[in-house]
Amino acid sequence: MPASRPAHRPTLLVLGADTGPPPRLGRLTGRVRIEYADDAALARRLPGADVLLVWDVTSHAVRAAWPGQGPRPRWVHTASAGVDHLMCPELTASDTVVTNARGIFDLPVAEYVAALVLALAKDLPRTWDLQGEREWRHRETTRVAGTRACVVGSGPIGRTIARTLKALGVTVSVVGRVPHTGIHGPDDLDRLIARADWVIAAAPLTERTRGMFDLRRFGVMQPSARFINVGRGQLVVEDALAEALSRRWIAGAALDVFPREPLARDSRLWRLPGLLVSPHMSGDTVGRWDELGAQFVALFERWEAGRPLVNVVDKARGYVPGR
Amino acid sequence: MPASRPAHRPTLLVLGADTGPPPRLGRLTGRVRIEYADDAALARRLPGADVLLVWDVTSHAVRAAWPGQGPRPRWVHTASAGVDHLMCPELTASDTVVTNARGIFDLPVAEYVAALVLALAKDLPRTWDLQGEREWRHRETTRVAGTRACVVGSGPIGRTIARTLKALGVTVSVVGRVPHTGIHGPDDLDRLIARADWVIAAAPLTERTRGMFDLRRFGVMQPSARFINVGRGQLVVEDALAEALSRRWIAGAALDVFPREPLARDSRLWRLPGLLVSPHMSGDTVGRWDELGAQFVALFERWEAGRPLVNVVDKARGYVPGR
Repeated sequence: MPASRPAHRPTLLVLGADTGPPPRLGRLTGRVRIEYADDAALARRLPGADVLLVWDVTSHAVRAAWPGQGPRPRWVHTASAGVDHLMCPELTASDTVVTNARGIFDLPVAEYVAALVLALAKDLPRTWDLQGEREWRHRETTRVAGTRACVVGSGPIGRTIARTLKALGVTVSVVGRVPHTGIHGPDDLDRLIARADWVIAAAPLTERTRGMFDLRRFGVMQPSARFINVGRGQLVVEDALAEALSRRWIAGAALDVFPREPLARDSRLWRLPGLLVSPHMSGDTVGRWDELGAQFVALFERWEAGRPLVNVVDKARGYVPGR
Repeated sequence: MPASRPAHRPTLLVLGADTGPPPRLGRLTGRVRIEYADDAALARRLPGADVLLVWDVTSHAVRAAWPGQGPRPRWVHTASAGVDHLMCPELTASDTVVTNARGIFDLPVAEYVAALVLALAKDLPRTWDLQGEREWRHRETTRVAGTRACVVGSGPIGRTIARTLKALGVTVSVVGRVPHTGIHGPDDLDRLIARADWVIAAAPLTERTRGMFDLRRFGVMQPSARFINVGRGQLVVEDALAEALSRRWIAGAALDVFPREPLARDSRLWRLPGLLVSPHMSGDTVGRWDELGAQFVALFERWEAGRPLVNVVDKARGYVPGR
């Protein structure tokens, strides 16, 4: 198939046959041949694709199919901020360029974190439980202004979370892989989480961040601290979080991401006291498909014109470096 | 009793015998005689008091006891922003000065409103219902930045709500009794609520504001609008809100205040679809008793020194005028 394809008309393979065609691709009509694949068909279709668009970002099929036989797309774009679901050693070692949806999720995730921070400070989950019981029980709540947050992850999402919380009067420290102006390095992490009221995980999943929230780190936090994870499930050692909550080392937690999604019905996390569970939706606001489609089309037009791509992932590190 | 009291040592009557002595009053030791009254004792004690401190702000006893026989305190301070629970024609007509706790509740109430706005935009109540059912159901949510709010009430609470929502990227209009720089007058109200995503009631209860959110006003709002009341319950016509919600004229509502508090167990409001109920706690953050005590002591020292009081309520209007 690739041989019969005119050299000037590249094949775009879209992973995510169930999700329907991405919006805005109509703009590329006549300039690209679009094919769709589901997880099962991906390995068979990869050799014929010039570009792979990972539209179903819950799929791990790229990681599974990539090491197979035949040519590979020279460019892979994922409609997500994280790239851990597609990276494998063979893709990292290849010449293929990987780009992500940097920017699209920053504000939605930051608002989601602010929603959780305020809801926890104002004890809203308990209020709605009490409403269900027709129970009028006045409680005192806490002010958010003047509290202290430590955001782990210094990419655009982490920085937007920091900016949003600062707008609410929170004192925010951001921790990244290397210290920068206004960004702390990993050496400061324990000191910062020890005094934080809010510890917010918004880091990419890499070999450096996997399991970073372990028993020791939860032990360092204050009894009044709340932990929020909007990064990746594997940043957290589940047993350690369960123990920290049950021993009241921390006051509460909210997880939007899990090592395996959807979270199994029999997971203990659904009912862990002090833990709020949401189904990986922090960044997913109405209208994002349109923005993600437009972002891909803009990248495609750069690629087509031979101009350098933006949002290029450092495959060894596992994220887009720089600010 | 008043006659036997030395002229230089005024009697301070504290309404709220159950709540314990207000903090910070120790500073007035030797300079004031402090007496406590509950609702039942208030009428008997009023004639012997120079100053009345309404510490139990859920009590309506002042309004009931004030019209009785005998001398009356020359100054009444309430540890609340609203004064509707104590005003009566006799108090309004008297020379007694009424002051309130202006300032203490501004930021807590504003944060509470921001918490509700974000929780509704991110569909958190539904998320926690689904968590209870161990149900992973991803939904799209909405961005708060770029939405439009109309805050009804231009006092310090309303203005702090506006500032807090603006910090989250919301376009905010404030409506007050009279137009001012940056404040709309009542003539603009219908036009502004017609285009608002968030209509926030933060006005004092006065004869002008009672029942202002009626069937017609809910009819003017957008189907996507949410209504939040942190002012006084009587600003809203309950039947009108119930109808607006059941006919889906608006998308939802959150009430923190009610005409009768606590809300009766058999009130339909506990279970009205789309309505969140909280027990009048928006302003009540940890540490406020201390701030309220310190605020009263500062006012008392002005009064003692013969200096003009601040936070003086315009009794005819029912709130502290000016900015």
